[in-house]
Amino acid sequence: MTYDALVEQIWRKNSFLCVGLDTDLAKIPSFLHKGDDPIFEFNRQIIDYTAPYTVAYKPNLAFYEAYGSKGWQSLEKTVQYIRSHYPEMFIIADAKRGDIGNTANMYARAFFETLDFDAITLSPYMGSNTVEPFLKYPGKWVIILALTSNESAADFQTIKEQPTGIPLYEKVIKTAQQWGSHENIMFVTGATQAPMLKQIRNIIPHHFLLVPGVGAQGGSLNEVAAYTLTPQCGIIVNSSREIIYAGNDEDFAQAAGEKAHSVQLQMKELLTKVLS
Amino acid sequence: MTYDALVEQIWRKNSFLCVGLDTDLAKIPSFLHKGDDPIFEFNRQIIDYTAPYTVAYKPNLAFYEAYGSKGWQSLEKTVQYIRSHYPEMFIIADAKRGDIGNTANMYARAFFETLDFDAITLSPYMGSNTVEPFLKYPGKWVIILALTSNESAADFQTIKEQPTGIPLYEKVIKTAQQWGSHENIMFVTGATQAPMLKQIRNIIPHHFLLVPGVGAQGGSLNEVAAYTLTPQCGIIVNSSREIIYAGNDEDFAQAAGEKAHSVQLQMKELLTKVLS
Repeated sequence: MTYDALVEQIWRKNSFLCVGLDTDLAKIPSFLHKGDDPIFEFNRQIIDYTAPYTVAYKPNLAFYEAYGSKGWQSLEKTVQYIRSHYPEMFIIADAKRGDIGNTANMYARAFFETLDFDAITLSPYMGSNTVEPFLKYPGKWVIILALTSNESAADFQTIKEQPTGIPLYEKVIKTAQQWGSHENIMFVTGATQAPMLKQIRNIIPHHFLLVPGVGAQGGSLNEVAAYTLTPQCGIIVNSSREIIYAGNDEDFAQAAGEKAHSVQLQMKELLTKVLS
Repeated sequence: MTYDALVEQIWRKNSFLCVGLDTDLAKIPSFLHKGDDPIFEFNRQIIDYTAPYTVAYKPNLAFYEAYGSKGWQSLEKTVQYIRSHYPEMFIIADAKRGDIGNTANMYARAFFETLDFDAITLSPYMGSNTVEPFLKYPGKWVIILALTSNESAADFQTIKEQPTGIPLYEKVIKTAQQWGSHENIMFVTGATQAPMLKQIRNIIPHHFLLVPGVGAQGGSLNEVAAYTLTPQCGIIVNSSREIIYAGNDEDFAQAAGEKAHSVQLQMKELLTKVLS
């Protein structure tokens, strides 16, 4: 998907919501367990009800790998379902891979050919070699971990480089800017790190930020928007548990749709403010 | 697998060789393509011929994911085959995962329960939260990326922390030491970085190092051994392409076995020197 197509979708739907498909058999309604592929069936219904309010879906690979090859089948079916029913969607593999050379080539093939994702999250620890093979695919994106929302993000991401005094996450952003452009690279920046988001936005005025951690993890949507929204929007905010587990009975998908709708209405208001 | 059991196996076999199962359909002998699961069939034969000279196998996840759920089936069969036929083997998932909280729990389940790996490679970028869920499994290991052998390792791994002057890879090693012990944590340290290996060994005299990059990537086994071998051995050296693609006809597995044997003889000599 091109940058322009993504931006167009955002403004058409008045939404920058990504629904995280962290689908856990232990948390989905029990009646779904009777079926052949409960994970896919859960995802399918969640997608149908949330699609009008959503610009992106983000399956979290761990939740599929936990069920081995059967989990990967559910993942494949989910991606195919989104692709065929909602072709405008931006589909993100939350895979946080990070390897080099021929291995990175193989990961790119896995996520951009075998599975038809638009984007993949990557860990930058091994440097540019991690990212290059993915950028050879026109219309595909990498989303590089920069500043994450977890407690131990400070173990390494905020150490300061000698002698520049630049924190590692900033070094990652500045270095990765040279690997591609705002048309094929995004960055993961956690919502719980709002004060630092403003500074990140100053460094990269045009890149999209993927912001997890709003909702269940405690980040504020209004605060994130205040620091990072651009005239092109420039952010995708992910919500997983808060939406997909909004209900737990026969109407679970409808409940998820309503929750997504309420988030989308908040986003519409924030987008309107940008225009004014 | 316990530390003691691993050390015992190394000295019994006089080998610290890990065979990397980077199995690529484009590189395996063409006659295998006639079968139902060429990747597994290739692995099975490679394993049978190399097992006497090997203490560990390391499937590289990317090469299986490239074929989607079918690739994951080949992976599952490979791990099960090693487990049932060569129960003494240390089996490493070269997955380079790195996520947090519930996602990390799910990855741990994927690799330590659904698949019965002994160890998984992890990227440290997100800090201790990435590692903790894996360390709850007794007898299982994490292998944390420290200093890798690729060209762009220098993008971030060697930046110096202010004001200590400690390079990031050293900071990772020193910090991660506090998360566990030499009985459940190893570090990835590239063979092409030999001059720095000595310094790493001084910091962690008891931890195992997983050393890729010997052979095809240009690292020297003798040099690596000189800097890192300990009285308990303390290193596992991985070789992938050089061994598994040693031959390309009906005798491919025998050729791989012979290559593994020649590496093992070199290792035996190096181990003997340690004792003397």
